[in-house]
Amino acid sequence: MGLKDTVLPQIPNFEAYTPGLAVDEIRDKYGLADVIKLASNENPLGTSPVVQRALTRNADMAFRYAQAGTPKLNAAIAKKIGVPEQCVVTGNGSDEIIDLLVRVKARPGVDNIIAFDPCFSVYKLQAKLCGVEFRQTKLNSDFSFDWDALLKLADENTALCFVTTPDNPSGYAPRVEELEALAKRLPEQCLLVIDEAYMDFVEDQDAYSLLSRREEFPNIAFLRTFSKMYGLAGMRLGYGVLPEWLADYCLRVKLPFSVNILAEIAGIAALSDTTFVEETMRVVTTGREYLTEQLKKMGFVVWPSKANFLLVDMPADAPFGAKEFVEKMLRCGIILRPLGSYNLPRSLRITIGNERENNVFIETAREILAHG
Amino acid sequence: MGLKDTVLPQIPNFEAYTPGLAVDEIRDKYGLADVIKLASNENPLGTSPVVQRALTRNADMAFRYAQAGTPKLNAAIAKKIGVPEQCVVTGNGSDEIIDLLVRVKARPGVDNIIAFDPCFSVYKLQAKLCGVEFRQTKLNSDFSFDWDALLKLADENTALCFVTTPDNPSGYAPRVEELEALAKRLPEQCLLVIDEAYMDFVEDQDAYSLLSRREEFPNIAFLRTFSKMYGLAGMRLGYGVLPEWLADYCLRVKLPFSVNILAEIAGIAALSDTTFVEETMRVVTTGREYLTEQLKKMGFVVWPSKANFLLVDMPADAPFGAKEFVEKMLRCGIILRPLGSYNLPRSLRITIGNERENNVFIETAREILAHG
Repeated sequence: MGLKDTVLPQIPNFEAYTPGLAVDEIRDKYGLADVIKLASNENPLGTSPVVQRALTRNADMAFRYAQAGTPKLNAAIAKKIGVPEQCVVTGNGSDEIIDLLVRVKARPGVDNIIAFDPCFSVYKLQAKLCGVEFRQTKLNSDFSFDWDALLKLADENTALCFVTTPDNPSGYAPRVEELEALAKRLPEQCLLVIDEAYMDFVEDQDAYSLLSRREEFPNIAFLRTFSKMYGLAGMRLGYGVLPEWLADYCLRVKLPFSVNILAEIAGIAALSDTTFVEETMRVVTTGREYLTEQLKKMGFVVWPSKANFLLVDMPADAPFGAKEFVEKMLRCGIILRPLGSYNLPRSLRITIGNERENNVFIETAREILAHG
Repeated sequence: MGLKDTVLPQIPNFEAYTPGLAVDEIRDKYGLADVIKLASNENPLGTSPVVQRALTRNADMAFRYAQAGTPKLNAAIAKKIGVPEQCVVTGNGSDEIIDLLVRVKARPGVDNIIAFDPCFSVYKLQAKLCGVEFRQTKLNSDFSFDWDALLKLADENTALCFVTTPDNPSGYAPRVEELEALAKRLPEQCLLVIDEAYMDFVEDQDAYSLLSRREEFPNIAFLRTFSKMYGLAGMRLGYGVLPEWLADYCLRVKLPFSVNILAEIAGIAALSDTTFVEETMRVVTTGREYLTEQLKKMGFVVWPSKANFLLVDMPADAPFGAKEFVEKMLRCGIILRPLGSYNLPRSLRITIGNERENNVFIETAREILAHG
């Protein structure tokens, strides 16, 4: 017996998450002064000034543990979205909540988890880490959802079903009637986890989210995040709105200080800054229209999106593929997201930036397509 | 089959971690203006001014994901402590590294983990959450380590052995020769995890830590934290110095953005602020001597400690027990740590505060013991 002999069998060939590249990385690598990152769906306005002031005012609190389970933040979230406090579980990003749900609800070697393909890779990674089977069925070719195919994956050991809406990387969102039908058709032991990381960008939310009607659906867990609309990706703050019994389990097994004290303070400040959210919405909506129009003119196929990003396919007559295009853009200081890790090698994902970023992106893309 | 039928069997009766109470909690509950927290071994000087400036200067970065795996921070740590970068894995507190080690290295339902009793409860909680057997043997009555008893727990399925030094809650630290002997006597498949959260407070480190000789011991993982000496408990930043193959596994399975961007920035700043570390060392050493002397005068049994806290037993003639004493102190605005959750109901743990905090604590304790 050696040291490696007790390592779990799923570990040695584990493939890590593929993140977007960081600004510093590209600046250092190519010696560029100005780098524009449109790769990780961060907020186009940066960090809210209200949040920045709260962080500055509380920088001296870095030495203190936050109150375990961050009850003040949970209360602020509950009030904002109109749900009972005891249903809210905050995490170190919604990644932590995804991990908790798998660890609490899916028995290793027994249960399975179902989702579409492609989907946010963290669902699959955490299932694998936990030793739980992960079943996927392809999205329709227009990135809409084939519910019958998804339901065919389910059986009496399906513990969780993950659905992302608006979906990543397409931006597609099914109407609420479809989610309702899914919730009713899933086997009764299966929890439907609706990941609404990008739902804040949807204008007519009640037509796309069941959150306001959660009491009718005791088998749905909702995930939301402060990373996108609230501009706090770096602080790591997400939350689940869960059936109360499940929230209780998650709070008991969760590491007590997983949410950092400045994330709690920033989260409370961000919820109060409605101006920032409105302005973000305006910039994303306008930018999405502008980018869609310009990209279409260049021959890209642009998929309709309700989120703060666009999925595009390369123009049919482009002299190179998506991967090479992303590389060329990188060398010009613009970071996009290639979608090899989503199994979409011909496509790329573009975060909606602010006006300047969008303009530079379009000019650069035009230049590269014209002259290589 | 109902929704709860796929919940893992260890979940429904799971008992959460018992944290120290928060300042706000006590201020609100008892309507107090001044609350002194000596319950969670936070830094007596608060947050380093260098860190505060770094946080303030970078508050606008809260919207950006950190670079996955925080390589710049890892490099700064590696340089500071003189180990190869590829052996360093940073986490959202060392809690995350503890969790990762259990998830990677201990097979649920097959392997076991050994440790002393009492020990830091997160070891036990994560083992339980992972479905891994946790075996404990009592510390000696003077809180020193009974190595033979610990080794008797080990068998061919012992995947991990956790040892904390200086130990929590006693402050006891065994000499390096004892750790060396342990590392050599453990079964060869067993990884020895030495949690050195408080090692920064030890003056003659080479007599108590094997970190500088890690290359001789391929079966040891070291855990360290920024929460204590570096004053960053609230930012959540800890790290493991691991055998390279294990660091690689952990980096692959770890959630990519578990360390927040301001924790990375604060950690790099904290490593540069040697003045803060020296001053903390001075305040802790002086305070520990002062509190030891004063508490002994009042009849407390004070156990010798190499950390920034003291374990004490109530005076033999005290009119009430430790729990009641802690309650009375709470009402006076002083938060201490009762040790029921460590199975030491007659003892309490007192964090070394700054000069003012220590004085107020001693005066209040004297008052309460004299007049109830």
